[in-house]
Amino acid sequence: MNVNGRPMRTIWLAEDGRAVEIIDQRLLPHELVIARLTTLDDAARAIRDMAVRGAPLIGAAAAYGVALATVADPSDNALAYAIKVLAATRPTAVNLHWALERMRRKLAELPPLRRSEAAYALADEIAEEDVAMSRAIGGYGFPLIAEALRRKGDTEGADRVEILTHCNAGWLAAVDWGTALAPVYRAHEEGIALHVWVDETRPRNQGASLTAWELLQHGVPHTVIADNAGGHLMRHGKVDLCITGSDRTTATGDVANKIGTYLKALAAHDNGVPFYVALPSSTIDWSLDDGDQIPIEERNTREVTHIAGWTEAGERAEVRLIPEGSAAANYAFDVTPARLVTGLITERGVCAASREGLLGLFPERRNRGAV
Amino acid sequence: MNVNGRPMRTIWLAEDGRAVEIIDQRLLPHELVIARLTTLDDAARAIRDMAVRGAPLIGAAAAYGVALATVADPSDNALAYAIKVLAATRPTAVNLHWALERMRRKLAELPPLRRSEAAYALADEIAEEDVAMSRAIGGYGFPLIAEALRRKGDTEGADRVEILTHCNAGWLAAVDWGTALAPVYRAHEEGIALHVWVDETRPRNQGASLTAWELLQHGVPHTVIADNAGGHLMRHGKVDLCITGSDRTTATGDVANKIGTYLKALAAHDNGVPFYVALPSSTIDWSLDDGDQIPIEERNTREVTHIAGWTEAGERAEVRLIPEGSAAANYAFDVTPARLVTGLITERGVCAASREGLLGLFPERRNRGAV
Repeated sequence: MNVNGRPMRTIWLAEDGRAVEIIDQRLLPHELVIARLTTLDDAARAIRDMAVRGAPLIGAAAAYGVALATVADPSDNALAYAIKVLAATRPTAVNLHWALERMRRKLAELPPLRRSEAAYALADEIAEEDVAMSRAIGGYGFPLIAEALRRKGDTEGADRVEILTHCNAGWLAAVDWGTALAPVYRAHEEGIALHVWVDETRPRNQGASLTAWELLQHGVPHTVIADNAGGHLMRHGKVDLCITGSDRTTATGDVANKIGTYLKALAAHDNGVPFYVALPSSTIDWSLDDGDQIPIEERNTREVTHIAGWTEAGERAEVRLIPEGSAAANYAFDVTPARLVTGLITERGVCAASREGLLGLFPERRNRGAV
Repeated sequence: MNVNGRPMRTIWLAEDGRAVEIIDQRLLPHELVIARLTTLDDAARAIRDMAVRGAPLIGAAAAYGVALATVADPSDNALAYAIKVLAATRPTAVNLHWALERMRRKLAELPPLRRSEAAYALADEIAEEDVAMSRAIGGYGFPLIAEALRRKGDTEGADRVEILTHCNAGWLAAVDWGTALAPVYRAHEEGIALHVWVDETRPRNQGASLTAWELLQHGVPHTVIADNAGGHLMRHGKVDLCITGSDRTTATGDVANKIGTYLKALAAHDNGVPFYVALPSSTIDWSLDDGDQIPIEERNTREVTHIAGWTEAGERAEVRLIPEGSAAANYAFDVTPARLVTGLITERGVCAASREGLLGLFPERRNRGAV
């Protein structure tokens, strides 16, 4: 999507071919900093410290991390070590493991000396596939927005669709386009008038800092709200549909996503607002049939006790929000049960959040059991 | 309740009898600053700028504001002006109007020269009544906590009650004791082991800054969480009951309270967690039978776009959280429909959140219609 009027992605091979470059998302929305990753450790740190984040992007970044590792040492041991290190960076997103497993399978069958070239090629392929999947999600999700506008135009004479999203599942969470925001960008391109309510998304504020930034850069109207406000907006008819992303989706349609997603799904359900989850199939964990089996990451409590922002003077500053001596807890994700999800928007189409719904789109998973 | 081991209130007559003193709550939890109010403008500004906040405390502060005004000018015109100015400070809390109306009725019947003494006496009375009401709420709410412990002890062998609260409805929101936290303080005094999950409560962070501070000062175990986390905790059995306050309650039991309360009530309902609202009857608006009739304050969007905290060096700093150019919205309250409220804890006892429930405790309101 556009930044300063020019298309950009979140991760790419450096021009000299000897490094991977990323947007360091920790400095957004105030500074656009490009970071250069040259080693396995660089890649692992970028994922763990959330310079890159978002399930699809984590998968691509992990794939490039393996590629960087094989350049330094293409041996079996080094490959296994790299995969182990990268797999341990974040516990909830399943397509981290999906990408690493794909890299492992491909590279393990090659002689070490041919691995690094193949690793880059496969990482590129994973990144390109992600772009294609996101674009497809946009294509399948866009009619839902068009339909909401048509319905609203018929009943209220309104000419703008109101969409609520939580966290950042835009192009910054993927390689391009994004998941939840792909239908929004597509609808925007098709000339549909829309406006996005952007949940701030405490404690890391990915909505306020990333979603707001990317919508602003691409010219999509939006308003940032406290996470607490979504229920009030839905009670007052100010939200036509919700779209969020997913960090991991069970084979039965339960969705692990950024903490607080469940609360918005409850409010949508209570007010008859459609609640869609957009996801590439790489985030589906076919081995799970209950969302409560998904491990929920607990992160450093400093993300709750402190917050960083920019002073009037344009300097980054971190401030403490709670009293010294008070404890804090920091759960990163919650699980939204399938019963609260109106539909899943995937790269193959929209389906019910259920085993049958998913198998209808992914029939090759029938009778296969766990991957 | 205790501050540094010594009892304190939120508002009191200065020792010299010529001013009202308050805790300036905007500087908590990092600085305990006592502010001196000597004029009507001081009092109006303290309420409007939220140096004092919380429905019960706003009522008491407004009463003292009238007293300060009558000292300067006890005429009919000045009295009417003072009440008009104070009434306009905050739109949602009904007991601001309740306190002002009570002052008006009492003072209007007195000759101007006797008004200032009577005004102070009535403001003191309103403050003392608030303490008594809060203490009574604590007394009626405490058995709910004791019962939760007994139930939990029977079924799980657990020996600690987990309570979730939103915003600040502790003694800082009242004159002493508080509303939602009065039962917590009482249970703590009775030796019941408990732990409070404290919602941060964006955008003004009254949970993170005020509730955490007062629980810490009084020695009540607690943990601050992002507003997004409560649903996850409830899904995992980590909350035994929720207690919040109310800024305005309809005659039918709908509750306007800090934005985000509705989301927690939905999560409690979805997980079978009792959801109680504690309120002095002064926050009941007997003239309303639908929560959607309650005006919802929209505050300055700077509360969403910026946040203040303390730097490592101990200095207060305000930082910007969202991109320049992104819009923000700031709704201060939402309405939780009575169907999601397990019970109302009032100074006369606990009742169902319904007209019949409330009239059972306040039979003098039967057949009286609007106040």
